[in-house]
Amino acid sequence: MPRELKADAADFENHFLDLLSSKREASVDVNDTVAEILADVRQRGDAALLNYTRRFDRLELTADELRVTPAEIEAAVAACNPDSIEALKLAAARITDYHARQKPEDLRYTDPVGVQLGHRWTAVEAAGLYVPGGTASYPSSVLMNALPAKVAGVDRLVMVVPTPDGVLNPLVLAAASIAGVDEIYRVGGAQAVGALAYGTETIDPVDIIVGPGNAYVAAAKKQVFGIVGIDMIAGPSEILVIADGKNNPRWIAADLLAQAEHDTAAQSILITDDADFARAVEQAIAIHLQTLTRSEIARESWEDHGAIILVDDLEQAVPLTNRLAPEHLEIAVDDPEPLAAKIRNAGAIFLGRHTAEVIGDYVAGPNHVLPTARSARFSSGLSVLNFMKRTSLISCDAQSLKAIGPAAVTLAREEGLTAHALSVSLRLEE
Amino acid sequence: MPRELKADAADFENHFLDLLSSKREASVDVNDTVAEILADVRQRGDAALLNYTRRFDRLELTADELRVTPAEIEAAVAACNPDSIEALKLAAARITDYHARQKPEDLRYTDPVGVQLGHRWTAVEAAGLYVPGGTASYPSSVLMNALPAKVAGVDRLVMVVPTPDGVLNPLVLAAASIAGVDEIYRVGGAQAVGALAYGTETIDPVDIIVGPGNAYVAAAKKQVFGIVGIDMIAGPSEILVIADGKNNPRWIAADLLAQAEHDTAAQSILITDDADFARAVEQAIAIHLQTLTRSEIARESWEDHGAIILVDDLEQAVPLTNRLAPEHLEIAVDDPEPLAAKIRNAGAIFLGRHTAEVIGDYVAGPNHVLPTARSARFSSGLSVLNFMKRTSLISCDAQSLKAIGPAAVTLAREEGLTAHALSVSLRLEE
Repeated sequence: MPRELKADAADFENHFLDLLSSKREASVDVNDTVAEILADVRQRGDAALLNYTRRFDRLELTADELRVTPAEIEAAVAACNPDSIEALKLAAARITDYHARQKPEDLRYTDPVGVQLGHRWTAVEAAGLYVPGGTASYPSSVLMNALPAKVAGVDRLVMVVPTPDGVLNPLVLAAASIAGVDEIYRVGGAQAVGALAYGTETIDPVDIIVGPGNAYVAAAKKQVFGIVGIDMIAGPSEILVIADGKNNPRWIAADLLAQAEHDTAAQSILITDDADFARAVEQAIAIHLQTLTRSEIARESWEDHGAIILVDDLEQAVPLTNRLAPEHLEIAVDDPEPLAAKIRNAGAIFLGRHTAEVIGDYVAGPNHVLPTARSARFSSGLSVLNFMKRTSLISCDAQSLKAIGPAAVTLAREEGLTAHALSVSLRLEE
Repeated sequence: MPRELKADAADFENHFLDLLSSKREASVDVNDTVAEILADVRQRGDAALLNYTRRFDRLELTADELRVTPAEIEAAVAACNPDSIEALKLAAARITDYHARQKPEDLRYTDPVGVQLGHRWTAVEAAGLYVPGGTASYPSSVLMNALPAKVAGVDRLVMVVPTPDGVLNPLVLAAASIAGVDEIYRVGGAQAVGALAYGTETIDPVDIIVGPGNAYVAAAKKQVFGIVGIDMIAGPSEILVIADGKNNPRWIAADLLAQAEHDTAAQSILITDDADFARAVEQAIAIHLQTLTRSEIARESWEDHGAIILVDDLEQAVPLTNRLAPEHLEIAVDDPEPLAAKIRNAGAIFLGRHTAEVIGDYVAGPNHVLPTARSARFSSGLSVLNFMKRTSLISCDAQSLKAIGPAAVTLAREEGLTAHALSVSLRLEE
């Protein structure tokens, strides 16, 4: 049974704090193993990479066979259901269009004393995209991670994907091809992260590594951070649905289960002002669970981490939502905008009864890589900005330096930095 | 003696690779100590904080005395040199003006099939600012870290600063006051980072922690990352100066030393096409070193990590610069724009002979917190964006869902996620 909390109960705050602080992920410490693998790949390059691939993916490769060939990609695309290829192309076009609007503007201006200032955005040169193998190998994730890099203008986009026992999802290759991935290597795990960070004889190093992975991949990304950039380390997925009693309970039940089916550690929370509706949703969940492919996972997630919060008025949901800072927030009411305007912490907001969160997972356009575990308090979903960086630009002439230089000399002297002071004062003496 | 490299020498590439990969920082592993301190602060709150402050700062405080009072701040401001206060105010006004131009735009549009899309930026609610104590306690850093948060619209800006033996730089308090810091606590080290991340009886927790610190502070920030956001972990400072032979060697020598005086691990590199000029700069450095307050530090940095690279043509500096990805880049030539346009990786570029890098440390306006250790390849300086986060907005009605929903159902089924498919297909059946 999921937790049930009533916002007007005397012990609500304690139960809510409990919900906020509940740890859903078992943290396994794989840091030492990962450090060894990374050091080995750094030192021995391809030889280490091939060795780990033999060991972990049961796959005997030579260095020449690491890269997936254009012929293999073509064959994969041909093997896919044409409807699925069309669906991927629709998704790719919409994701590209949305992300193109995130491209930041350069800045250049001259201030009143004549100092020329500005900034310039440039794309990262090379990006690595980690794609998990096996059942968590999602073509939609390939699009969501690769397309922001392409829109940013990354020159070289390199994908790594493990192929345990040689098996690779053809639709993942099709998605990579549609997204314009430049190189694909059939390696995974910490060893693939090491290859992207340090480079090997076959794989040139990249500047940033993004994409989801298991505990080994996450630990490897953390360890190479600094040598390369990384995206955030994603935790289990979450949804918060704010719904009044006028929703179809079957729809809301499906939304809650769509999150729950990802992972037993996923979390689905419903906030409603209608106890009867809450009951109806619970019943609909029980019925849906009878037919879902991943019902065991979904059931465990819902029973262990799910919650229903009853409030007197949906306005009460606002501060609770901001404290939960959910990855996904659905606001299923007739007029969602006034509530949405008061939400400060959420990765993405899905407005109105027809906007299933799932639409954002695939085809809406915004990124589905979003901050989890309350990190929407301080971070944002994956975007074009992750693949760009900003350079400040400053230009003084003799005249404008006279206007602001003396203050710099004063502060440098206060900080005891006499070479700093000298560097400006010499130019002021001229 | 700094290294000297000639770009046309046969072994140049090896020497340059050596320069790129040289580690300047001794890494001390303080992770276990820091983990203990953090756990203690998390569990015991103020009691732990006061205990570590007694131990590390030799300061006996009660919880009531943790916070710096308005009267203390006023007294500090009154004790400062009025010229220094004026210089700080000039700097603050210019930093505020520059950063205000970084504020990102919200987005809202309806696409051709009727889906409403967009994003909204909001400020982080509470930010913590770490300020080192002792000699590295720089008022300029207070402005550079605090003002982007204020411009972003952060509600609550909390500063922590250790006061070893009770000593606190009055100009640091003045800078905090000018920058609009809301709360100041006289604590430092890993214990202060823990207090900001977890909260104590006296200090409410924040959502993001920024600011420089020693190895303990850096390790603590890394360990609390995820619970709160953090800025980048800064390494030792660096400058790369591209200069032709028409510069005053004393100016360029001072610029190289201004970086070197920060830290023995700092790095100053000169790229020039004029061997005589290089010689003159070296001589000017020797002369400047005779009078600088921090000449021992500057000399050690220059001798151990400094470098002069002789090129035939300054165009050759472009690919070298992009590989070095320096924190600071000066381009000291008559017409710096064509060279600057080709630089992709640099934290900040200082254009022309009069733009001493130091001007950017204090009063130019752009932030002086910039990516070090080649991370300008993938990251940017501190900005208003560090204190804001973006929420995606998606809204479908029945009609627009019909346009894009079927593709989502197709992809969900391909990924084996039947609850995902159900969540959309139920709404399409309507």
